[in-house]
Amino acid sequence: MSNGPSTSTIHSMADVWEAYRAELDGVEHQVRQNLDSSVALVNTVAAHILSSGGKRVRPLLLLLSARLCGYTGREHYQLGSLIEFIHTATLLHDDVVDEADIRRGRRTARKVWGNQISILVGDYLYSKAMAQIVEFRSHGMNEVLAEACTKMAEGEVLQLYYNGNPSMPESDYIKIVEHKTAGLIAAACRMGAILADASEERQSALFRFGQYLGIAFQVADDTLDYNADGERLGKTLGQDLRQGKATLPLLHLLDHCSEQDRNMIKDRMETRTLSPEDLERILGLMQSTGSLAYAMERAKTYIAAAQHELEAFEDSSARRALIVAADYMITRDR
Amino acid sequence: MSNGPSTSTIHSMADVWEAYRAELDGVEHQVRQNLDSSVALVNTVAAHILSSGGKRVRPLLLLLSARLCGYTGREHYQLGSLIEFIHTATLLHDDVVDEADIRRGRRTARKVWGNQISILVGDYLYSKAMAQIVEFRSHGMNEVLAEACTKMAEGEVLQLYYNGNPSMPESDYIKIVEHKTAGLIAAACRMGAILADASEERQSALFRFGQYLGIAFQVADDTLDYNADGERLGKTLGQDLRQGKATLPLLHLLDHCSEQDRNMIKDRMETRTLSPEDLERILGLMQSTGSLAYAMERAKTYIAAAQHELEAFEDSSARRALIVAADYMITRDR
Repeated sequence: MSNGPSTSTIHSMADVWEAYRAELDGVEHQVRQNLDSSVALVNTVAAHILSSGGKRVRPLLLLLSARLCGYTGREHYQLGSLIEFIHTATLLHDDVVDEADIRRGRRTARKVWGNQISILVGDYLYSKAMAQIVEFRSHGMNEVLAEACTKMAEGEVLQLYYNGNPSMPESDYIKIVEHKTAGLIAAACRMGAILADASEERQSALFRFGQYLGIAFQVADDTLDYNADGERLGKTLGQDLRQGKATLPLLHLLDHCSEQDRNMIKDRMETRTLSPEDLERILGLMQSTGSLAYAMERAKTYIAAAQHELEAFEDSSARRALIVAADYMITRDR
Repeated sequence: MSNGPSTSTIHSMADVWEAYRAELDGVEHQVRQNLDSSVALVNTVAAHILSSGGKRVRPLLLLLSARLCGYTGREHYQLGSLIEFIHTATLLHDDVVDEADIRRGRRTARKVWGNQISILVGDYLYSKAMAQIVEFRSHGMNEVLAEACTKMAEGEVLQLYYNGNPSMPESDYIKIVEHKTAGLIAAACRMGAILADASEERQSALFRFGQYLGIAFQVADDTLDYNADGERLGKTLGQDLRQGKATLPLLHLLDHCSEQDRNMIKDRMETRTLSPEDLERILGLMQSTGSLAYAMERAKTYIAAAQHELEAFEDSSARRALIVAADYMITRDR
């Protein structure tokens, strides 16, 4: 195993994927190895979603964090695959909660096998990951991962609590995003550092890196939901609003539009109805009030804060890759 | 904390509850202490199901196993509460999977707050329990609990896989029961032994005790679903058949009834329709073919096997209580 390419060859995300392809292949191999349930249907359903073209962002961040801290071993294949199992478990449950029919252009597991199977295979993947993680006998890893999972569930509940309610403080929006998305990414980064036996200081720096980056990732995602070019991603615009979810650009818009528009938006959120004309009006308003620009600016600020955490580390190809990966988190074609 | 009453005073389950009331109160207190999410709705939903009159069978078995192995500390309050959290998480998900409206005479969480909240609060309770369990820094505990959770999910998936299918081998029925019910009970018993720093031999004996007892518990439950006096439990008879679940008494009946009756039963399972007349006929057939007696006999055999595991332990009030508790597992008024 080489320590990766020289720093100077990593300029774009394509360079990162290229440089760490062998490492990510190792993760893929381990993902397949871990699908060893004695109940065949469990493996079938898990494989359906695990092979649906996810980018393996969390395993990538885990392995880059490990390499950044000087790790030269191979245990990150297994750890990366377990983080992906947990992420996949949350997707299975999220698709049930959101009644989603399509994910990454394919029918969701709940659409193919039903909600019941999706819930239970999600439970399986989560438990299976915990059962394997404890085999590392690292209290730090056990702690950060279980804590992240607890926070994910809390974030999802808080999001549901506010469903259909446009009067959410921005601080609660950030809390939701931090819990439901950033927690697991931050845990992945810290786990890489723990694997490398890094100091508590470095572990914490990488945890914060992941946390900022995770918040930015979700804020950008929520913003792209209102961005006209978003259709390129195969997504229908305005899905969050249609599901009654208030996100950062909408909260900004609600604070900056006329009473009449505010009432229209509130009505659509509460009734979960949104005509193409409504959507067009809202998208136009978001342009004129600068709501999209505001939200993307927030995302960029979080990315800058994440990258700032890397300044404590010496230059290396892993550090360069983390900087590039951070920028990539808020681009539309990730 | 006394070591409990003298052996001679424990004859019935009422004596067990009486003798260990203070211990179980300690568990209750810890259950409430652990409901400390910063998201208020999480605590509300969790409290709804946690305070619905569950008997705390798993915490009881955990504490008795610990006492049996000479444990004199107080950590079993926390461990018992965490086992109950995990059990509660599975109930929340089971009620969604089974579309249950009533549990223990109260509306289910999914009926009050919806399926989405039930799924997510289940995820929360499971993660929260894992996050607290790892604080014991016991690899044995982490391992047995995560493994039990993995098996629970597999058992539930296997059960769903066979849903509506009357052609299930009895061995797969036992596998389902062992995975979905016995695994967590066995884990609770082993965790008690681990807490007491018992030898691997004693840990394994108590694990097997819990496993046999757990199988018996579920087999008896499945049998009571067809037992005319079952109405006293506030349950409607024949619910399993109505949900397309083949259980031991039904599998026995299918093997021993006429072709015509077999076809009738298969049809009702597949179509999930069951008239009062159908049910009456099936209950009558189960009496005449001895299917109920057969299933209860199997349950009793497992209880005997469980109690046999206790022979390696010296006499004590905890041992006496475990013997009584084992018998209690297959009585109708548990």
